[in-house]
Amino acid sequence: MISIKNKEQLLRNGETELERKAREIALKSLETALNSVDPEKIVKARVSVTNSILKVDGYSFNLENFQHVYVIGGGKASGVMAKALEQVLGNRITEGFVNIPKGTKCETDIIELHEASHPIPDETGVKGARHILEIAEKAGEKDLVICLISGGGSSLMPLPRDDITIEDKRKITDALLKCGATINEINTVRKHISNFKGGWLAKKAYPATVLNLILSDVIGDPLDFIASGPTVPDSTTFNEAIKTLKKYNLWKNAPESIKKVLSNGVKGLIPETPKADDKVFKKVFTVIVGNNRSACLAAVKSLKADGLNTLLLTSSLEGEARHVGTVLASLAKEVIASGNPVPKPAGIVAGGETTVTVTGKGLGGRNQEISLAAALKIQNLNGVVLASLSTDGIDGPTDAAGAIIDGKTIQKALEKGLNPETFLAENNSYNFFLKLDDLIFTGPTGTNVNDVSVIIVL
Amino acid sequence: MISIKNKEQLLRNGETELERKAREIALKSLETALNSVDPEKIVKARVSVTNSILKVDGYSFNLENFQHVYVIGGGKASGVMAKALEQVLGNRITEGFVNIPKGTKCETDIIELHEASHPIPDETGVKGARHILEIAEKAGEKDLVICLISGGGSSLMPLPRDDITIEDKRKITDALLKCGATINEINTVRKHISNFKGGWLAKKAYPATVLNLILSDVIGDPLDFIASGPTVPDSTTFNEAIKTLKKYNLWKNAPESIKKVLSNGVKGLIPETPKADDKVFKKVFTVIVGNNRSACLAAVKSLKADGLNTLLLTSSLEGEARHVGTVLASLAKEVIASGNPVPKPAGIVAGGETTVTVTGKGLGGRNQEISLAAALKIQNLNGVVLASLSTDGIDGPTDAAGAIIDGKTIQKALEKGLNPETFLAENNSYNFFLKLDDLIFTGPTGTNVNDVSVIIVL
Repeated sequence: MISIKNKEQLLRNGETELERKAREIALKSLETALNSVDPEKIVKARVSVTNSILKVDGYSFNLENFQHVYVIGGGKASGVMAKALEQVLGNRITEGFVNIPKGTKCETDIIELHEASHPIPDETGVKGARHILEIAEKAGEKDLVICLISGGGSSLMPLPRDDITIEDKRKITDALLKCGATINEINTVRKHISNFKGGWLAKKAYPATVLNLILSDVIGDPLDFIASGPTVPDSTTFNEAIKTLKKYNLWKNAPESIKKVLSNGVKGLIPETPKADDKVFKKVFTVIVGNNRSACLAAVKSLKADGLNTLLLTSSLEGEARHVGTVLASLAKEVIASGNPVPKPAGIVAGGETTVTVTGKGLGGRNQEISLAAALKIQNLNGVVLASLSTDGIDGPTDAAGAIIDGKTIQKALEKGLNPETFLAENNSYNFFLKLDDLIFTGPTGTNVNDVSVIIVL
Repeated sequence: MISIKNKEQLLRNGETELERKAREIALKSLETALNSVDPEKIVKARVSVTNSILKVDGYSFNLENFQHVYVIGGGKASGVMAKALEQVLGNRITEGFVNIPKGTKCETDIIELHEASHPIPDETGVKGARHILEIAEKAGEKDLVICLISGGGSSLMPLPRDDITIEDKRKITDALLKCGATINEINTVRKHISNFKGGWLAKKAYPATVLNLILSDVIGDPLDFIASGPTVPDSTTFNEAIKTLKKYNLWKNAPESIKKVLSNGVKGLIPETPKADDKVFKKVFTVIVGNNRSACLAAVKSLKADGLNTLLLTSSLEGEARHVGTVLASLAKEVIASGNPVPKPAGIVAGGETTVTVTGKGLGGRNQEISLAAALKIQNLNGVVLASLSTDGIDGPTDAAGAIIDGKTIQKALEKGLNPETFLAENNSYNFFLKLDDLIFTGPTGTNVNDVSVIIVL
């Protein structure tokens, strides 16, 4: 059970009965959202075996038709997913091997959990990825390979191709990051210098049947970008990988090993990553067991149960956190002024992942900054609460998951001699909410489907 | 009839039947929104006289009980409002005087339209404001004063008090603007150095009955900030005016005349602006004849008539235009992915006024930048259109009202060799859309209730 550890404190911080009630409803819906994407719970809830028929979403697999069931994969939540899968499949699992971050506390009986480096990949990850590939390669036509993928899988399962060292790979990734390349651009390069990512793992598993169980940490669930898509078709090309490096002026000084692989790829000397029309993918089935939308929908359900008129705004919120906070606040104002987009009592949920462009020297996170910006816009409104958190429990470089605000937040801050605008200008939302005791603490939750914000207007 | 002049061109720019249809629905709803806040139409539609009973919204005034009916006021739309009011009241109007911007084309028979300087106030405005005040002063207990207020009224009706010159006033306003003071802060100062703003005009009209007809150009309709609220209670104080100047380090070098007035005010030597409990306001009745919300609701009605599932998101949208555009795009994506916040075919309306922090050297406007940022996020989505415009027809320092985009916009730009991200980085949205022929042109509309965006997903 994932819980908000300081819930009582946060409820007490509501000055009126109305605000305490709004805070309670908001925090309950966020807890519901978090538990709806608890990797252990969702695997157990969505995967079942009855009379040897494994069912997950619309798919059914008669386990009696398979000689072996292999479990492979990697990611921050994949250890817990493996543990849950063991509880469902028991000794029907022949063998399993999953890469998890060093220090993860999780125990399994059949599936081996292999600790690897995260977020900076190293040889421990390579060793594990190689072993996963070996299992995929030995799987035959009559075998089922279940692949457990979650966020962080990309760094946890590195397997650079040919002469490329892990050092070369790290170098190019760092350089791309520093140039402000998008994660999609970085992954385009990574997939083309890998023996594992960009569909190669699925290719190696062929002709076995592959069942992907994915916990998505990428907004919009582009499958080939979650853990760099080892078991799904790749949509990018060698040409695009080179173009990306040239775009950021990184081609000339890129490691020779990488230049060689990408050039050979363009020349056709190395095969292109497997594409959607590859026969391999006729035997690959993919189920997203949890994502931001499923967390948002769980939050909505909780709000509905509390008697609110609900609205799921979006699960692909993007943009600078403070401006997103301002927009969310404008919805609360409209509910009060005109009963739009939903009439009072209203519960609005928005998910996604915003960004914070750091210009100040303070400490904060995306969700804390959304909250602070929103607080400035809902000053003195009664019965309005906004709470926002990162589902992994770690908002930016802080130990808080997020923050909660109401119409009294700014007034309380001013009374304490705090200038909210200065804290916002300094990207210092953590210290602002620390002083108001309005940070939300969950500790690391073991899951990650980005961020969820709820707005309550009673 | 306000119309989008290049509508045919914008419809032709839709590549598929679906996009042409979505564009048509979007532009029609924006035209409906614009016409719903046409000052002439709304005055005629909302103010009526039958058997000498003047009715407007919930209020009724028996004109036979009044000896004189005076019409005063000012603002960019107030000339047209005066013309419409003449058509409703005819020679029941005793006398009228309204300040309008120089060059406004508008003719009236009874009410005198006085041309004044805008947006930089000068002596022409002072002369007019003084005459308006004279009319208010001569109005007695048995008289009705109808006050027509619209955006721009603050600069059009300047009347600095005591020894403060128009030059002093301009100086302090400029200094506050340069320091990044908010419009509310600026108006707090302006109201306390004026003989007209901040409720003084109503005070002078007492004991006459005052009927305010207001076209709101301020988000959220804070009455005392529309044209600096000459006929409504002021919520700010002399103390706050001084605090504001000190906050921006402008007190020391402020013109002596201004320092003297504000200091005398704090000492009680000059009366504070009239507050909500002043008996004056028992005889003041205020009707907002049009605002951003009424424009948004008209847009929603048009979308509904076209068979769409509609949502009025907010009429108090704020924040940096490009981030607001990204958020609006995320709603379109969610409609496609999950049928939230409304199922397809969907029409979502959002109003308000965003800001553009100019860092580049390009040309653009708030609505054009919203559109460009959104275009980057809805690439390749079918049947999605976003159109955004400024209701005054002038988006930023451009001759366009706004822009329209669909899922093909970015692809078309790339084919023309345009880099959308560069145009966005350079705040060059005008030239981007100029090259794609996707600017919306209405010409000056004669009204202003900020901005309206519509998102269509078919």
